[in-house]
Amino acid sequence: MYITQGLKNAMQMNGSRVATVDGTRRYTWSELGSRISKLAGAFKNLGLSERGRVAILALNSDCYLQYYYAVPWAGAIMVPLNIRLSPPELIFMLNDSETEILLVDDTFVGMLADFEGKLESVKEIIHITDQEKPADGTHHFEKILNAADAIPDAASDSDDVAGLFYTGGTTGLPKGVMLTNHNLVFNNLNTLMMFDYSSDSVYLHAAPMFHAADICSTGSITMVQGLHVFMPRFEPEAMLKVFEAEKVTHTLIVPTMINMTVNHPLIRNYDLSHLQKIIYGASPMPEEVIRKAMVEIPHCTFNQAYGMTELSPLATILPSKFHTLDGPNSKIKSAGRAIPSIEVKIVDEDGREVPRGVVGEVIVKGDNVMKGYWKRPEETANAIREGWMHSQDAGYMDEDGFVYISDRLKDMIISGGENIYSVEIENVIYQHPAVASCAVVGIPDEQWGEVVHAIVVLKEGSNAEEKEIIDFCTGKLGGFKIPRNVEFRGEPLPLSGAGKILKNKLREPFWKGREKRIH
Amino acid sequence: MYITQGLKNAMQMNGSRVATVDGTRRYTWSELGSRISKLAGAFKNLGLSERGRVAILALNSDCYLQYYYAVPWAGAIMVPLNIRLSPPELIFMLNDSETEILLVDDTFVGMLADFEGKLESVKEIIHITDQEKPADGTHHFEKILNAADAIPDAASDSDDVAGLFYTGGTTGLPKGVMLTNHNLVFNNLNTLMMFDYSSDSVYLHAAPMFHAADICSTGSITMVQGLHVFMPRFEPEAMLKVFEAEKVTHTLIVPTMINMTVNHPLIRNYDLSHLQKIIYGASPMPEEVIRKAMVEIPHCTFNQAYGMTELSPLATILPSKFHTLDGPNSKIKSAGRAIPSIEVKIVDEDGREVPRGVVGEVIVKGDNVMKGYWKRPEETANAIREGWMHSQDAGYMDEDGFVYISDRLKDMIISGGENIYSVEIENVIYQHPAVASCAVVGIPDEQWGEVVHAIVVLKEGSNAEEKEIIDFCTGKLGGFKIPRNVEFRGEPLPLSGAGKILKNKLREPFWKGREKRIH
Repeated sequence: MYITQGLKNAMQMNGSRVATVDGTRRYTWSELGSRISKLAGAFKNLGLSERGRVAILALNSDCYLQYYYAVPWAGAIMVPLNIRLSPPELIFMLNDSETEILLVDDTFVGMLADFEGKLESVKEIIHITDQEKPADGTHHFEKILNAADAIPDAASDSDDVAGLFYTGGTTGLPKGVMLTNHNLVFNNLNTLMMFDYSSDSVYLHAAPMFHAADICSTGSITMVQGLHVFMPRFEPEAMLKVFEAEKVTHTLIVPTMINMTVNHPLIRNYDLSHLQKIIYGASPMPEEVIRKAMVEIPHCTFNQAYGMTELSPLATILPSKFHTLDGPNSKIKSAGRAIPSIEVKIVDEDGREVPRGVVGEVIVKGDNVMKGYWKRPEETANAIREGWMHSQDAGYMDEDGFVYISDRLKDMIISGGENIYSVEIENVIYQHPAVASCAVVGIPDEQWGEVVHAIVVLKEGSNAEEKEIIDFCTGKLGGFKIPRNVEFRGEPLPLSGAGKILKNKLREPFWKGREKRIH
Repeated sequence: MYITQGLKNAMQMNGSRVATVDGTRRYTWSELGSRISKLAGAFKNLGLSERGRVAILALNSDCYLQYYYAVPWAGAIMVPLNIRLSPPELIFMLNDSETEILLVDDTFVGMLADFEGKLESVKEIIHITDQEKPADGTHHFEKILNAADAIPDAASDSDDVAGLFYTGGTTGLPKGVMLTNHNLVFNNLNTLMMFDYSSDSVYLHAAPMFHAADICSTGSITMVQGLHVFMPRFEPEAMLKVFEAEKVTHTLIVPTMINMTVNHPLIRNYDLSHLQKIIYGASPMPEEVIRKAMVEIPHCTFNQAYGMTELSPLATILPSKFHTLDGPNSKIKSAGRAIPSIEVKIVDEDGREVPRGVVGEVIVKGDNVMKGYWKRPEETANAIREGWMHSQDAGYMDEDGFVYISDRLKDMIISGGENIYSVEIENVIYQHPAVASCAVVGIPDEQWGEVVHAIVVLKEGSNAEEKEIIDFCTGKLGGFKIPRNVEFRGEPLPLSGAGKILKNKLREPFWKGREKRIH
């Protein structure tokens, strides 16, 4: 199994059919395939080495899809960057991955100034732009593509790494998750099967395309020769417009986006009759939101999914049949159950399976388990034991095999579908000269699910305001990671016997009377 | 991916639901799992070695399914034997595979006398029987199962060989096709996806369970926790009865069986309203048969599939949407197109892809390609080149990627869904002392698609009757391979420049005005 094979089948079977719609721009599968084989040629012309890394920092577009296929077509490894990160975080990833070529679009080209002199391996930068002239020192995407000769597909091996997908880490440093061709295509097959994609499917890339959740459908829509539709970034009314204009049948968005959409005052002005399925995951879905969604788009079915980048990313799915608010089949509070050919177990600290209903760690085995963390053999060995990926999520399983995620073992906050590791933020706050100790926790928020809350104890005799701490973080961290509130405490933070800050204790008062249901 | 994983998921999710129906006998997934883990224990008690071979010669039953899972559960390799073969053919396979344990049922237990003294590696024989006492020198299936302790699943590696599936060979000797756990489960995922299996599916094992075509669904029905229903062997009215009694939704049968069923005088006495899909393949489907089938069971959809044991077995499928007799979508004469994540190409003798519409050899690449032929490295290297399985079938591809099988490069006859290699039969006929030369070809037959026709030239001064040649073959070959007719010729058989018998010349008069459309 390899990524470009799906594209080649699409060219073989449906060459003259429209493959992508980006605003007014449309390409058939033949045109798309031709552009991809030339873009791969352009990468090679720029000196891309065998298995070299090619990163992208861009909003959603058909160019992003061309990048997604051109990198493996050239026999190289993709590094799709999180668009919400700060320059220092991105610089770390570009250097850690030893990226050779970087693609940026108009939205992010301004960031190149911040990168200046700090990139250790990037040799060439490609500017994706509708302007005639690219930014100084960069190549024009369209021009180098058109100037290049098509090259033959590298037809990678199944076990070749296809991409590095950076995730935050409990150690504070982001880690590159190595997903192979096999991992990604296997996940595409599962997506295709569980979401009933067919050649009649019209999929809207509304969630950011760098994210594994959207990548599920990137491959599978191609494999069935459905239609890819792009919007640069999520915005509720813009999405409603595209739903109507392109007769969108499927999309994947996070609960925050569903909430903003179904509560949009103009939702009933749009024809949503073609919508068949909305897939969501990555963060908690409040019951009132899903209830409202099922009222506003009654003919649409919903699927909840659970996974993580390390799992390519899908592990469990809640089929529509069980996605009901009431009735004997209702399992809506669960994250679903194992996808066929994937195994899920709940185990105790010694790795023994616990009885049904008892909380333990969720572990997963299957062809979706990543190859490992890039250049992090120890962390890989810790995460994958005897083939089982240890999710660090706590949950239980009911008698019917449905999984309920109850909390995280790892110290993570999910805000608007983004994973945020507290330690990354704490590391920055600790750099402030006035800070003696600090702890970052997630607290409940109607719109975002959770938001970042920092609790700080100042050094004796030192002084700092909330705004000062927030400003200190800005630019060092992606905007979504900046603490929403900073709370100062006079007394020391509560510690465990081993001297670790007791986060549960700190979180407790904020979550009183609420369920911290997370998946 | 490994075979037993699907079973473990079924036990995890649907333990108390009925899994199998065999006559009046029903087992839940928990009971089935428990029996399988004990049967695996029984195999080990009998001395089965690591990766040892366990063969079965039996009609369809729930015990066959238990065998299918217990062998990999014990970390061993299955060898499901073709029930239509003669003792010498079966002895060859048992010895070639170095089988340690053989299972036989009441139908075949009498054949053990023929095996006496000729099995080189079989140490233990298990008799599947409802009788109290097993045949002499054999173990009683039910009793050794009940006496054994359950053992833990061996949880094989993806690339471990799961089974040896014998096919006839152009060299005259059957070859054991090595299919790995990955091959079989990957094929199950494809089957599941293309045939829309769900937990509501009720699948009837009507085609013989040793055959790769039925094995498609064996794994996938378990993976979705549908219901397995068994009938010992195909018989049209018995099948109609089971369709009604068990509310069967899916089955896979060969065209000959569809023909016998839809033309059965009592078909309208049975309630077939639950039938959703009939899958067929393995031999040509006459248009009048499929037309009649679509009239008799109008609510049922049909899928045609093309493959071969070496492809685990599925390569292409004709979706129901294109399975129409008329209209713009009609592709009913094609064998379908490549399944997602499998590649199909038509190439010339030098391996270059030919233009659409031009006949060449059908070659296939994907995770469904066998590991190789057991102990036949040369034949493996010849069949699989750069990852592409060379089917030896001739065909062409249309503009939409649909494949049309036009003839075989290899000298093969398909009769009632069974592959028959002419050379095997010729080898036997040549042993008759009166035969100077002979050629075996397939000639058209309304019921079986093709039947075996032998053309014989006798030695000067020798004499033989048709019956004598047929009797000579009986016992040496499976019944379906015995020539239906023997034609004697006075003149020498037509030869090519290289001295090879020109089979096409011999076949021609029989096929005049007919299309030899085969898949």
